[in-house]
Parts: sequence; structure tokens; C-alpha cells
Amino acid sequence: MEERPVDEFDYGRAVYEPLTQSVRQLIDATIRTEVGEDTVAKVQALVDEGARLLSERLVPESFGVQYTRDGRGMPWGNAIIGLRNPIAPPLVIERNRDGSVWCDVELGAAYEGPPGCLHGGISALILDQLLGATAHRPAQPAFTGTLTVRYQRPTRLGRVHGEARVVRHDGVKTYAVGHLENGEGIMVVAEGVFVRPAGRA
Amino acid sequence: MEERPVDEFDYGRAVYEPLTQSVRQLIDATIRTEVGEDTVAKVQALVDEGARLLSERLVPESFGVQYTRDGRGMPWGNAIIGLRNPIAPPLVIERNRDGSVWCDVELGAAYEGPPGCLHGGISALILDQLLGATAHRPAQPAFTGTLTVRYQRPTRLGRVHGEARVVRHDGVKTYAVGHLENGEGIMVVAEGVFVRPAGRA
Repeated sequence: MEERPVDEFDYGRAVYEPLTQSVRQLIDATIRTEVGEDTVAKVQALVDEGARLLSERLVPESFGVQYTRDGRGMPWGNAIIGLRNPIAPPLVIERNRDGSVWCDVELGAAYEGPPGCLHGGISALILDQLLGATAHRPAQPAFTGTLTVRYQRPTRLGRVHGEARVVRHDGVKTYAVGHLENGEGIMVVAEGVFVRPAGRA
Repeated sequence: MEERPVDEFDYGRAVYEPLTQSVRQLIDATIRTEVGEDTVAKVQALVDEGARLLSERLVPESFGVQYTRDGRGMPWGNAIIGLRNPIAPPLVIERNRDGSVWCDVELGAAYEGPPGCLHGGISALILDQLLGATAHRPAQPAFTGTLTVRYQRPTRLGRVHGEARVVRHDGVKTYAVGHLENGEGIMVVAEGVFVRPAGRA
């Protein structure tokens, strides 16, 4: 009998991603529900039992970036791209051949600031991740030095498209720009300065 | 028989806040769990049943800012301060007599970026809300024009203290500054330009 090697990455994703997606739907319903206190109490009991079962074995403190045995990174706890983090939409960042990046993401009730609109800080969170993704070079991680976000118009909740690209390198610094847009045009623009630790430029 | 008037604000808070808190614990356990697939499947069934029950009556699209009959605002769906939004810690913003604001908040696994550290975009989200809170005048809402965030050092997950204050008014514009700090010092600083709609300056 042969044993097929299990790909840790695919296995972890297959087991935990559907649960995370269910928790995202629970988050949305928790915000928007108008059911009465008896039903709320019933749901709270279900949620507490779920948390108790999951807590039977926990990694300490936070997920971090875990690696498969063959060195593949799993940044699954990340607040905006994490496959296993229910507060992340999650953002899926696509990379063009020239190193620029883009994403399409659907943002619902959990990401609200002004009524019906995306929280300005969530726009900043998405742009921080997008600009960082394009500034990052393989094996030369870049850290955000400064992020400037300009709000041109309130962004309605719903589908949002984001883009970012590097405009200049200067020693250890990389300058990137990006924006968020939807059917109404460009809503938010950003500039970022990213710094590679000295000696690795 | 007298009937005691029920305070909608307090009632809504008493019914929905404990559920939201339980969902926050579920989020943390979902990220950090290492239980096997059978347990995960069991938990997913509990979560799906909870979401189904809550979905029997939902407000459409998003929470918005709902008001009590006597006009008290409930920004409970807000992504960072919302009492009913499980993705919000929630941030509780305190106001000093001079109009400056501060907060103390515990940030766990759900807010991670680099391993063990706060996501830079979450720092931006907190600072956007803090600076906006101090720039806001009663009955004269101010909208974020520009937010600039400077990252001085990576911020470890855990307890974070934030502060913000207005430094200058200039026509319809209000300039505010703020920072996040912890036991290791000041980690992130921010400046914001807030704009009041014309005619209301």
C-alpha cells in the first residue's frame, strides 16, 4: 500500500478555510440581526460551545507566519489577507509581470464607517497591504516607513478594486503609490515609503 | 400597574453586546486552533446554525448609525468602535475637557501583521478614528481629508495606548495629531487634515 504525501498547505486550507468563511457570515449576521433576546441567547450558547471546542488546542498568542516543511509561508492570521482570520475579507492580491499588484474585494457591513460607506481606516488598511506587497522584493522584506492616504470621496460598501505600483527606488527606500476605485471612479489614493533593513538594499 | 420605560440604548446593548463579545472569542479561537478536522466540522455546524438563527431577521446591507427615539446615536456597526461589530476590539474613545481624546485597547491575534506585531494598517485604522474623534465638533461632522501615518517601530500585539488632539483650525480645515504607544515607547505617529462641509465652518 502506498501512502500519498499530504500537502500541508492544501490540507490546512481545506480544513480551516470553510470554518473561517462560516465565521465571516456569523460576523455579518451578528451586526445586522434584529432577532429577539431569546434567539440571541440560543446563538450565544452555540458560539460559546464552538469557541470551547476550538480552544482544546491553540497556538499561543497569535498565528504568526507558519511554514510548511518545504518552507512555504502561510501568513494565514494576517488581519487583511489571512485565510484563517475571519476579520480579513480576505484580500487576494494579484501580481502583474511588472511587479505592480491589484485586488478585487467585496466589503460588507463589517467594514462600515459612515453609514453605508467603507471606514476610512479600512481603506488605509487595504492600501497599506497593497503598497507593501508591490514594494516587497523576494528575500528582501520592506517595512512601511510612512503611509499617506488622501480621501477624495466617501466609498460605498460593496465591490472595490485596488491597485499599487512602485514609482522609485532610492537607496534602502522604495516609493509606491496606489488607489481604491469602484464604479463611481477613484475614491482614495495613497503613497507609501518602504524601507529595507540596512545592508540588504 | 406602572410600566417602566425601557431605554432602547441600554436594552440593545444588554441583548447584543454579550453575543458580540462571544463572537470575538470565537474569531480568536478560529485563528489559533489546532484541533483536527472532525472537531472543526462540528464547530462549523454550530456556527452555521447560529448564523441561520440570527439571519431570520436582518437589517438590509449594513447597520449604519441607528438612533433611539430620543435621538441618541448608536454607531454600533463601526469597524473599530462598533459595540455590535465583532471585528472591532471595540475601541472605547475617552474625551478630555480640552477636547483631546485617548484610548487603551488590548489587541490580540486578529490584528496581526508581521509575526507577533500589530498590522500597520490596523494602527492606521485606530489613528483615523482617534484623530477624527478629536477633530469632530458637536453638530459639525468633519470628514478625513488626508491621513499620514509614520511607523517608528513595529508594535507588539497586546495593550496599546492612543492619544490625539487638534493642533490648528484653518477655515473649513482642522489639523490633528496623534500617536500609539506601549511600554516600549511611541511606536506610530499620525497627522490628519479634516474637512467640515462648506458653509458649516
